[in-house]
Amino acid sequence: MLEKIKKAIDDLYPEMVKTRRYLHQHPELSFQETETAKFIASFYKTLGISYQENIGGYGVVATLNGGKPGKTIALRADFDALPIQEENEVPYKSTVDGVMHACGHDGHTAQLLALAKAVRPFQEELPGTIVFLHQHAEEYAPGGAKPMIEAGVLDDVDAVFGTHLWATTPFGVLQTSKSAFMAGADRFEIIIQGKGGHGGYPHETNDALVIGSQLVTQLQQIVSRRIDPLKTAVITVGQLEAGSAFNIIADKAKLVGTVRYLDAAIQEQIIAEIENMIKGVCMACGATYTFHYDKGYPPVINHPEEATLILEIGKQMEEVVSSDEVVPVMAGEDFAYYMLERPGAFFFTGAQKESNPYPHHHPKFDFDERAMPIAAKILITAYFKYQEQG
Amino acid sequence: MLEKIKKAIDDLYPEMVKTRRYLHQHPELSFQETETAKFIASFYKTLGISYQENIGGYGVVATLNGGKPGKTIALRADFDALPIQEENEVPYKSTVDGVMHACGHDGHTAQLLALAKAVRPFQEELPGTIVFLHQHAEEYAPGGAKPMIEAGVLDDVDAVFGTHLWATTPFGVLQTSKSAFMAGADRFEIIIQGKGGHGGYPHETNDALVIGSQLVTQLQQIVSRRIDPLKTAVITVGQLEAGSAFNIIADKAKLVGTVRYLDAAIQEQIIAEIENMIKGVCMACGATYTFHYDKGYPPVINHPEEATLILEIGKQMEEVVSSDEVVPVMAGEDFAYYMLERPGAFFFTGAQKESNPYPHHHPKFDFDERAMPIAAKILITAYFKYQEQG
Amino acid sequence: MLEKIKKAIDDLYPEMVKTRRYLHQHPELSFQETETAKFIASFYKTLGISYQENIGGYGVVATLNGGKPGKTIALRADFDALPIQEENEVPYKSTVDGVMHACGHDGHTAQLLALAKAVRPFQEELPGTIVFLHQHAEEYAPGGAKPMIEAGVLDDVDAVFGTHLWATTPFGVLQTSKSAFMAGADRFEIIIQGKGGHGGYPHETNDALVIGSQLVTQLQQIVSRRIDPLKTAVITVGQLEAGSAFNIIADKAKLVGTVRYLDAAIQEQIIAEIENMIKGVCMACGATYTFHYDKGYPPVINHPEEATLILEIGKQMEEVVSSDEVVPVMAGEDFAYYMLERPGAFFFTGAQKESNPYPHHHPKFDFDERAMPIAAKILITAYFKYQEQG
Amino acid sequence: MLEKIKKAIDDLYPEMVKTRRYLHQHPELSFQETETAKFIASFYKTLGISYQENIGGYGVVATLNGGKPGKTIALRADFDALPIQEENEVPYKSTVDGVMHACGHDGHTAQLLALAKAVRPFQEELPGTIVFLHQHAEEYAPGGAKPMIEAGVLDDVDAVFGTHLWATTPFGVLQTSKSAFMAGADRFEIIIQGKGGHGGYPHETNDALVIGSQLVTQLQQIVSRRIDPLKTAVITVGQLEAGSAFNIIADKAKLVGTVRYLDAAIQEQIIAEIENMIKGVCMACGATYTFHYDKGYPPVINHPEEATLILEIGKQMEEVVSSDEVVPVMAGEDFAYYMLERPGAFFFTGAQKESNPYPHHHPKFDFDERAMPIAAKILITAYFKYQEQG
Repeated sequence: MLEKIKKAIDDLYPEMVKTRRYLHQHPELSFQETETAKFIASFYKTLGISYQENIGGYGVVATLNGGKPGKTIALRADFDALPIQEENEVPYKSTVDGVMHACGHDGHTAQLLALAKAVRPFQEELPGTIVFLHQHAEEYAPGGAKPMIEAGVLDDVDAVFGTHLWATTPFGVLQTSKSAFMAGADRFEIIIQGKGGHGGYPHETNDALVIGSQLVTQLQQIVSRRIDPLKTAVITVGQLEAGSAFNIIADKAKLVGTVRYLDAAIQEQIIAEIENMIKGVCMACGATYTFHYDKGYPPVINHPEEATLILEIGKQMEEVVSSDEVVPVMAGEDFAYYMLERPGAFFFTGAQKESNPYPHHHPKFDFDERAMPIAAKILITAYFKYQEQG
Repeated sequence: MLEKIKKAIDDLYPEMVKTRRYLHQHPELSFQETETAKFIASFYKTLGISYQENIGGYGVVATLNGGKPGKTIALRADFDALPIQEENEVPYKSTVDGVMHACGHDGHTAQLLALAKAVRPFQEELPGTIVFLHQHAEEYAPGGAKPMIEAGVLDDVDAVFGTHLWATTPFGVLQTSKSAFMAGADRFEIIIQGKGGHGGYPHETNDALVIGSQLVTQLQQIVSRRIDPLKTAVITVGQLEAGSAFNIIADKAKLVGTVRYLDAAIQEQIIAEIENMIKGVCMACGATYTFHYDKGYPPVINHPEEATLILEIGKQMEEVVSSDEVVPVMAGEDFAYYMLERPGAFFFTGAQKESNPYPHHHPKFDFDERAMPIAAKILITAYFKYQEQG
Repeated sequence: MLEKIKKAIDDLYPEMVKTRRYLHQHPELSFQETETAKFIASFYKTLGISYQENIGGYGVVATLNGGKPGKTIALRADFDALPIQEENEVPYKSTVDGVMHACGHDGHTAQLLALAKAVRPFQEELPGTIVFLHQHAEEYAPGGAKPMIEAGVLDDVDAVFGTHLWATTPFGVLQTSKSAFMAGADRFEIIIQGKGGHGGYPHETNDALVIGSQLVTQLQQIVSRRIDPLKTAVITVGQLEAGSAFNIIADKAKLVGTVRYLDAAIQEQIIAEIENMIKGVCMACGATYTFHYDKGYPPVINHPEEATLILEIGKQMEEVVSSDEVVPVMAGEDFAYYMLERPGAFFFTGAQKESNPYPHHHPKFDFDERAMPIAAKILITAYFKYQEQG
Repeated sequence: MLEKIKKAIDDLYPEMVKTRRYLHQHPELSFQETETAKFIASFYKTLGISYQENIGGYGVVATLNGGKPGKTIALRADFDALPIQEENEVPYKSTVDGVMHACGHDGHTAQLLALAKAVRPFQEELPGTIVFLHQHAEEYAPGGAKPMIEAGVLDDVDAVFGTHLWATTPFGVLQTSKSAFMAGADRFEIIIQGKGGHGGYPHETNDALVIGSQLVTQLQQIVSRRIDPLKTAVITVGQLEAGSAFNIIADKAKLVGTVRYLDAAIQEQIIAEIENMIKGVCMACGATYTFHYDKGYPPVINHPEEATLILEIGKQMEEVVSSDEVVPVMAGEDFAYYMLERPGAFFFTGAQKESNPYPHHHPKFDFDERAMPIAAKILITAYFKYQEQG
C-alpha cells in the first residue's frame, strides 16, 4: 500500500506544482491567512475528508481515520507568507504587493494536500489515523502552533512529523538531528537613558552613547565567561542607535538584539546575565534603563527514536541522495511546541534550485519544486513505519 | 568726544531696536545673506560712509577715515541666521519658515550700524580709522571670516575687536579671557565596514556594531591617557548608528562626532590618535574603515593686552555690572581667524532676558535688547583707548 | 576464560593495593621516572613476559603473545607523579618531599600490572596479543605518548584502550564519550611592551597596564563573535601582571593563559585571532608585543565504535553502577596521540572516595582503591570483545 | 642691608656645601630624623638664635626677632631622606645603607641654616621676624607640615615662602606659578574578589582578572567624560595583579594607583566616580570589592601676589637666568598645607647638574650645589620685599 501511495504522490506532481504556484501568487501574512485557510478547507471538502477550521486562529485540521487500528500521527505544514516584495520574474510571481511566500510554506501546503489526496483512496486499509495539521502563522511569534495545541489538536495524537523545504540544502538531501535541531530565538530591546547635552561639556551629561557602547563590549563576556563552553549561546545586538547630531551628547541609546540557544536553562541564564550587566553598567555610569525581553519559539528538540526513523527512511529511499545527521541550525521554528508535547521529529528536505542561490527570506528566494513529492513520500513512509514500531 | 558718541548711541537705541527687529523678521542662512548684505550697504550709503560689498562672499566692509592720525581698528559684526523654526510668539517673529536669527547676529548688526551712525558726525575730529567688518556666514564652516581676510580686509588694520551678545550671561556682565576664550571645534565621521550576516552566525561575519562600540570605549583612552592632563581636549561621539534589524548582524557602523581643543598641537595629536585607534581596532577585528576629519574654526585666542583693555573698560563703565575674566567656552567662532592675523579681543556682552531662559540655537532664543548699546559703547571705547596705547 | 581472568583480578586485589601504595610512597616527576620504570620492568621479568625498556624515554612496553590468532590491542597506563607536597596523613603517604601521585597514575600502573599477572596463566589459550603500554610523563607537555609512538609502540597494534581513575566521578560509574572526550589544552604568554613613566604624566608614556586590560576585554570577542557557537572554545587569561608601584605607569604587562578546544580547526582559528587582536590593540595604543603559543596535547577524540563497546561492557558488568555517555571534560590528556593513530577509546573509572572530596592535583587527593580491579576488568573485557568484532 | 646679607650668603658658600654634604652622608628616613633635628637645633644654639625642638614630631623652629617692627615671615626647609640605595660614587655618598637624600632636602636645610647665619649679625636693624621652619617628613604622607601647623608654628606668621632645588630645571632658572603649582597626589587600592576555578570552566567562576581589566578600561571614562575638560585630573592604575597560574581562573585582582588633581572639588568627584564605577562593574560581573583611598597632600596653590613677588625678584636678580611662570607640576608637596593657612608661595630653584641627567628619587640623583646660595638669596629678598608691601 505504501508503495502505491508513493506512486500516487508522484502522479500528483503536476497538481502539487499547480497548487503551490497558486498559493505563491496569493500569499497572506501571518495571522491574516483567511483565503489560504479557505483554500485548504475546500480542498479537504472536495476530497471528502473531515476537517475543522479556525483552530487556534486560522488553523485547519483534517483527520483521516484509517479502516484498521493503529496510532494517530500528525503531519504538519505551515501556510503563512512574509512581508517581502518579491523580486523574482516568474509566471507565478506574487500578486500581492509587499507580501511573498519567501520561505516555502506554499510548498509545504501543496505537498501535504497532495499527500492527503494520494492516501484518501486507501482509507479502508489504512492502519491508524492521519491528522493533517495545516498551521497558520509560523513566521511571527507567538506563532500558530501554540494556540492550535491549546485548542487540542494534539489531544489524540501519538506523534508529530514535519519538514521544511530547505533552499540552501542540496536537492534530494535529507537533514535532521537526534536532539536539538533548530535554535531558540528571542528578541530583546534595551533603552539606556542618560542625560544629553552640549558636545563640549561631557561632564554635565551622562553620555548614553558611551554607556551603550560600553554595554555592547561588556555583553561579550556573557558568552565568553558566563556560559558553559559546551553549550551553545549567541547574543547579537543587531541594532544600536544613539544620538542625532555630531556635536550633541546623546541622551538615549537603543540596543535591539537576538539571543539564540538550544537549552532552556541557558536561555534563563542569559536573560538574568544580560539584565545584571545592564544594571551594573548603568549604575557605573549614572544612567537608567528599560529592558524588554521577548521569548520567541523554544528550540526544536527532536526525539531521538523518531529522528532515527526519519534518517533510516532517508537512507532507504532512492530519491534521497543523502540522509544526514547535522548540527543544529541557528534559526527558530514553532514546530518546537509540538516537540514539547509529543514524540516526533522535524527535518529538512533539500530543495536548492540550481540556478538560484538565494536563502530563505530573500526577495529572490525560490526552491526546487521536485523536492515536494520527496518530502511527501518521507512523511507518509514515516507514518507507516511508526505504525510498526513498539 | 567719546562721551558724546556714547550719548549718541544711547539716543539711537530705538532705531537700533527697530533695525534689529527688522533683521530678525528677515533672516537669511549662511552664504545666502544677499538681502541682509544689501540692507547693510544701503545703511552706509545713507550715512555717506564709503563701503565695499561682496567681500569674500556677501561681506560688507565700511571704512570711516578719521580727520586725525591714528590706528586703524576693525570692529566686527556677523549677520547670518540659522536653519531653525522660531517658536517665539513676538511681534518681530521671523517671517521665513525654518530660518531664524537664533544666535543674536541681528543684534550684532544693529548695534554696529547704530555705532557707525553715532560716530559719523565726529569724523573730522576722529583719530585713526574705523573699519566696520560686517561678516556673513559665521554659523557654517568654513565661514565668512577666512575669505574676507583673504580678500584683504585686514591689510591696513592694526587691531580687531568683536563681541557676542550672550544670552546665558546675566544682563550687563562683560566676560572675556586673556588667552583662549572659545574652543576649536571640529567634526569627524568614521564608517566601519565589517561583514553582515545572520544574527545566529556571528563567526561568519565581522560584527560592525561590536567593532564600533569597541572603538567608542577605546577612544576614551585618548583623553584619559594620551593627552597632557594640563591641556583641554574633548572627543565626543555624538551619533552612532549600526544595524537595521534585531536579528541581522550589522555590516556597517557610522560614528559622527566632534573634537574640542584650545591648542593647535593638541588638535593635531588628537587627529593622529583617533586615526591610529580606528586602524588598530579595525585590524584587531577584521574590518576596514573610512575616516573624515573636518577641521572647523580654530580656537579664539585673545591677545592679552587687548583683552586687558576690554576688561578695564568694563570695570570703568557704569552700565557694565561686572567685568570678568572667565575660563574658555567650549563653543567655536570664526572670529578666531582675525586673532591669528592681528591683535585684538573677543568678548561676551551679557544679554540674558529675565523671562527667557533659552540658550543660543534654541527655537525660543531671544536676548535683552538693552545689551546692544552697551556692546556698542564698549567697542567704541576700546577704539579710543587703543588709539592712546603705545 | 574471561570470567576466570576477572576472578583472578579480584583475587589479586590485595597485591594491587600493595603495589599502588608502594608506588604512592615513591613518586617520581615526569621525565624523571627511572625507579618506577625499573619497578615495572622487574615486575614483567618476574612474570616472564617479554618487555622493552626506555621506549621514547622511560616508557616500558610488555607484550603478551596469545597462543591463538587475533588482534593486537594495547592497554595503556601512565606512571608519573606531580610536583605537589602531599597533605594526606595516610600510612602510604609520599616519602618524597614536594612530589606526589596526586592524579592516580600509581593506581593505573598497579591495575595494569595486576591485569598482566592475571592473564599470564592463560597465555596459551589467549587469542591475539596484549601490549601493556606503561607510559611515562603524561603530566608534562610534550608528554611521553608522542615519543613512544614515534619509537614504534603502535606499529603492530590494532586498537588502544585506556582509563583514568576519576576521583570526582562516583565509585563504580563508567564515563566516556563517542567522540570528543577530553579537550585540547594549550598555553600562551603575551608580553606587551609600552613605555613607563611618572604616574602624573600619562601622555609621556604608553601605559602597558591599560593596554593589557584593553586586550583582556577585547579577547572576549573571540569566543563571543569569532568562533562558531556550536563549537567549544575557552580562552582564559589566568595571570596578568603589570606595574610595580602605585604611582609609576607600567612599561610592561604580562598575560599568561590557556586555550581549550575540541577541534583542531578551532585551535588554529583561535591562535590566529589572538595574534590578530594583540596586533590591533598594540597598534591602536602604540605598544609592541611578543606572543608565545605552546600547543599542548590535542583533544582526546574517542572512536565511536570502540567507545560504544566500552559503554556496553559497562552496562553488562555488575560492578559498574552506571555506564554513561558524557560531555567532554575540559582537561587534557596525551592519550589523545594514540587516538590520532589507532582506533580505541579512553574512559573514566569512577573512583570517588566517600570521605575525600578533593579533586585531582590537590594536595589531599586520594581515590577509592576498589576502583582498580573494576578498571582492570573493563580493560580485559574490552580486549576480548574487540577480538570478536568484525 | 639686604645686599650685605646676600654678600654674606655668598661668603658662606663653602660652609653651606660642607653642611649639605655632611647631611647627605647621614640621611634619615621620614619620621625618624632624630640626628638631623639635633644637628639643626645645635646649629641655632651655636648661632644664639632661639629655637624649639620636637615640634609636631621632629620639627625644629627657630625665630629671629628683628630690632625693628615688621611682619613675621616663615621660610621653610624640609630635611628627611628616602629609602633608596645611593648609586653615585662621590666623596659625600650616603653612609647609610638603603637611605639617601635623593630629593635635595639636604640642600634645603644647608641653605636655610646658612641664611640664618648670614642674617644673624643684622638682627638689630632687621624689620619684622624671621621664622626658620625646619620641617621633617615631607616624603611620606601624612607628612610633617600638618602636625607642625597644628602645633602652632604659623600662629604669628604673616606669610610663608619655600623653595625646592629642582634637578630637572636648568641651573639658575626660577619657576613658579601664581595659582596651582604642584598637584594633589593620592593613592588608592582596589581588591576585586571574584571566584576562582579551573581554566576550562569559566562559567563556574567569576573571573576576577577579566573584571579587573574591565574596570581599568572603564575607569578611563572618568577623565574623558565625567571631569570638566577645563580641569586637570589623572587617574593612573600603576599596578595590576591577578592570578597565579596560566590554567587557573583568578579569584582576585588587585589594582593600585594614584590620582592627581589641582582642585579639591575634582578630588572629591573622582573618589565618588571611582567607587561608583567599581560598584557597577562588580555588580555587572558578580564580584565584590574593597576600595581604599588615601588622600595624600593637597595641591600646592600659590597665592598670586606672593608668587608675583617671587617672579619679580627673579627678574631682578643677576644670578637668576630666567624667572618663569610655569604650568603646574604633577608631583605633590606638603608645603600645600602652609598655603591653605597663610599667604605665600613655593618655587623651584633650578639646580640641574650638567653631568647628571637623573631626576629626583633616582639612585643617581644629585644637584648643582651652586643653586643653594641663589635659593637663599631669593628667600631673604622675598622677606625684605614683603616687609615693604601694603
